[in-house]
Amino acid sequence: MTAAYDDLLAHVRETHLLAATAALLAWDQETGMPPGAGDVRARQLALLARLQHERATDPRVADWLAACEADPRVAADPERAANVRELRRDHERNTRLPQRLVEELAATESRAQQAWAEARAASDFAAFRPWLERMVALQQQKADCLRRGPMPRWDALADLYEPGMCAAELRQLFAPLRERLVALRHRLAAGRAPKVALGRVPIDEARQEQFVRAVLAAMGFDFGRGRLDRSAHPFCTSTGGDVRLTTRFHRDNVLDALGSTMHEGGHGLYEQGLDPDALGTPLGEPVSLGIHESQSRLWENHVGRSAAFWTWCWPIAQQHLGNACDGLDAAAVFAECNAVEPSLIRVEADEATYDLHVMVRFEVEQELLAGALPVADLPARWNALYRDYLGVEVPDDRRGCLQDVHWSCGLFGYFPTYTLGNLFAAQFAAAADRALGGLEPLLRRGDFAPLRAWLREHVHRHGRRFRPAELCQRATGAPLSAAPFLAHLERKLGAVYGL
Amino acid sequence: MTAAYDDLLAHVRETHLLAATAALLAWDQETGMPPGAGDVRARQLALLARLQHERATDPRVADWLAACEADPRVAADPERAANVRELRRDHERNTRLPQRLVEELAATESRAQQAWAEARAASDFAAFRPWLERMVALQQQKADCLRRGPMPRWDALADLYEPGMCAAELRQLFAPLRERLVALRHRLAAGRAPKVALGRVPIDEARQEQFVRAVLAAMGFDFGRGRLDRSAHPFCTSTGGDVRLTTRFHRDNVLDALGSTMHEGGHGLYEQGLDPDALGTPLGEPVSLGIHESQSRLWENHVGRSAAFWTWCWPIAQQHLGNACDGLDAAAVFAECNAVEPSLIRVEADEATYDLHVMVRFEVEQELLAGALPVADLPARWNALYRDYLGVEVPDDRRGCLQDVHWSCGLFGYFPTYTLGNLFAAQFAAAADRALGGLEPLLRRGDFAPLRAWLREHVHRHGRRFRPAELCQRATGAPLSAAPFLAHLERKLGAVYGL
Repeated sequence: MTAAYDDLLAHVRETHLLAATAALLAWDQETGMPPGAGDVRARQLALLARLQHERATDPRVADWLAACEADPRVAADPERAANVRELRRDHERNTRLPQRLVEELAATESRAQQAWAEARAASDFAAFRPWLERMVALQQQKADCLRRGPMPRWDALADLYEPGMCAAELRQLFAPLRERLVALRHRLAAGRAPKVALGRVPIDEARQEQFVRAVLAAMGFDFGRGRLDRSAHPFCTSTGGDVRLTTRFHRDNVLDALGSTMHEGGHGLYEQGLDPDALGTPLGEPVSLGIHESQSRLWENHVGRSAAFWTWCWPIAQQHLGNACDGLDAAAVFAECNAVEPSLIRVEADEATYDLHVMVRFEVEQELLAGALPVADLPARWNALYRDYLGVEVPDDRRGCLQDVHWSCGLFGYFPTYTLGNLFAAQFAAAADRALGGLEPLLRRGDFAPLRAWLREHVHRHGRRFRPAELCQRATGAPLSAAPFLAHLERKLGAVYGL
Repeated sequence: MTAAYDDLLAHVRETHLLAATAALLAWDQETGMPPGAGDVRARQLALLARLQHERATDPRVADWLAACEADPRVAADPERAANVRELRRDHERNTRLPQRLVEELAATESRAQQAWAEARAASDFAAFRPWLERMVALQQQKADCLRRGPMPRWDALADLYEPGMCAAELRQLFAPLRERLVALRHRLAAGRAPKVALGRVPIDEARQEQFVRAVLAAMGFDFGRGRLDRSAHPFCTSTGGDVRLTTRFHRDNVLDALGSTMHEGGHGLYEQGLDPDALGTPLGEPVSLGIHESQSRLWENHVGRSAAFWTWCWPIAQQHLGNACDGLDAAAVFAECNAVEPSLIRVEADEATYDLHVMVRFEVEQELLAGALPVADLPARWNALYRDYLGVEVPDDRRGCLQDVHWSCGLFGYFPTYTLGNLFAAQFAAAADRALGGLEPLLRRGDFAPLRAWLREHVHRHGRRFRPAELCQRATGAPLSAAPFLAHLERKLGAVYGL
């Protein structure tokens, strides 16, 4: 009697096999694909995108959804009801985009990404500019297809990544956050800055890799269902049956490799913590990018940049990194990890200035989409905002507006999810701390299992069952707020800087 | 006015993108996929296979083909005519097998392969026997669907791998070949066997890899459109835009790594030499397994096992392999590479006895398919043929009739393509030698470009434009014969063995 529901689920599970196949193609493109394969790969990704779109917009899907929505037995079952609610959401999104646009986006994104990589290497904004112009125009078309009524274009795109979030709400969260973060930056400038030591010692990449793999294994990342590789820009992706992380190694910055690995490892634990029986259905999918990012930031910052973590980690660092650790101790490296230094590159930013980088992008992409900022003027606008928010001068576009891959991949409305992630992370960490009787003693002995179990129970296993706002309320007992994040930062950095 | 042709080509090109995607999934499965992803990967590959089959049997294909065949402008254009001829061939193959049989074959092959792996491990032919009986019966049904008129069943299956080849012609080629190879084996047994030295020295795998990569690059393998990785069993696959080779390393057998790499490198040069503009159409596809194997064997044996090659290669080996080369010289390693020793395992066989292994399988599978040999009698028949052809006693079925995976996967009529590869390779090498004024001086200085260009011009670039027999005639001026292969072996091995 729920044949429509079963047919619908079988259909979306099969569509997901194609999506996961595309994810593997994209992973391969970033980790090992020879450059000459780019054109064919773009065509393969475009075809897979088209096949997914055809399946998603199959007229039967609308019929199945209507039958499910009319079926009181589906409504009475919370899991089925949540799947149907989310599939309706997906269906609306999918049917609003014309086939032609879907294919053009897929093909342009793949090529623009290659153009971006070359332009960034050469710090040549002019070479990337036509691609970005094309991409902005396509994103405007996409937003126009997606938005309902007088919704700003930016909101229509952002909703793809953070269901229910909008620019107006973000501005309310961000304005006081920016003020307090800029104030904190100024206060810390007068404090006692930690010495950078371990982060500048040349260390063989093979040793660094052994070290970060040991930490990732201790976090509980399952290598039987996952891999760690290298790419220019670290990322995490699921290929359906396994979860693939990438990291990067700089000879004289092991702390960057550690931070990147723990960050992607947090994403990976979320993916591995989803219900495998729900694979390919909404209940088996991550709920939003903000929640996803909360998992990466929680492990990167609340674990990896804590004094307790370094008490446990220091002997492991010494074992793998050898002489590089001479003359240092856990307390010094903990302090070093928390050095605040306004800088140019978002992915290298410290915990206190990271969100200022995000806010630059939030401003700029709203202006680009609204047509208020011509692409040609992007570098100047970008550099001005960096001066204003971070107090730094941008010397070239490689370290300026060409630093991120996102816009070349068509990810507009995406950046704020990073800051949402920081806010969710702090709120989840505070809730787990209360529930587990204090995280500190657990981290100090490297016992990450209770934290991982708490996250699995309260975040991972639900998939898209609850929207982010409801998930946050249920997991922490309160709506999302910047307060736990600011309290965490001001407490920790105040101590490190002797304020 | 040739709209049907254009539609047909666009359709098959798109189908090929799915096939190439499946190739990437399979490559990933063999090179790096975490074990936990196996179930999902199997579902992805099954889905891609189904989508390809649906597209191949789309009723429009028959209509397009009929329209093309009735169009005199297509017939007047040799390239278009060849594409249509080959697509008709593919279509017949795809539509002659009833869906029920295709599914039963797939299901039985999957289970038979597992049964084979267990039976081989336990050297337990009785456990595999019912599966092989079932498989022979299914292959008989498959052949009955495929064959036209009074064609032998074996021929109908072999035609899938080597278009136009039949058992009668192979028997004519193989009978004198077997006689001369057995005679050569006897003569060499009385000669001066080379010492095995480099092939038994323990050498670090990283050094071995540097060495084989240097040779592969010198061969002209384009790493901008290709990769080299590791897998349990070396293979070569095309993912559409690039060509992926694998090799393997045993600490104490660098010559195995070199041979495997040059072998797969030869396959890779063929794939890279196909016309990229014809990608996804018959003119952009390899013509047969025998021709494919000729390219691998030419580089592995006619180049890699020649005295001239070792004159060039020896300083490179010394550079990468270091101490392992002490006390040896190019002449000694050349001789070592050409040691002949009748053995039990086909994939480990030397150049002079390899084809005797293949001929055992050729005899046996014809008898099995014709019903002349009951499956129960296979071990005895196999062992008798090994005694007769190779002069070795088979101690158990693990090292006898259970050694190869092929029959459990349903690959009947496939084995002779290995020997055809050897014969084509020798005939191509002799023709290139004449055309280039002698290969020896080129190989001696590592100048592989003229040979590669000759192969590209006469073999690679044609794809499936000419059937193998015509390709051979055009490239070498003569029909395929065993004479060049025997002349090559008798000359080289006579010298090595001091006869």
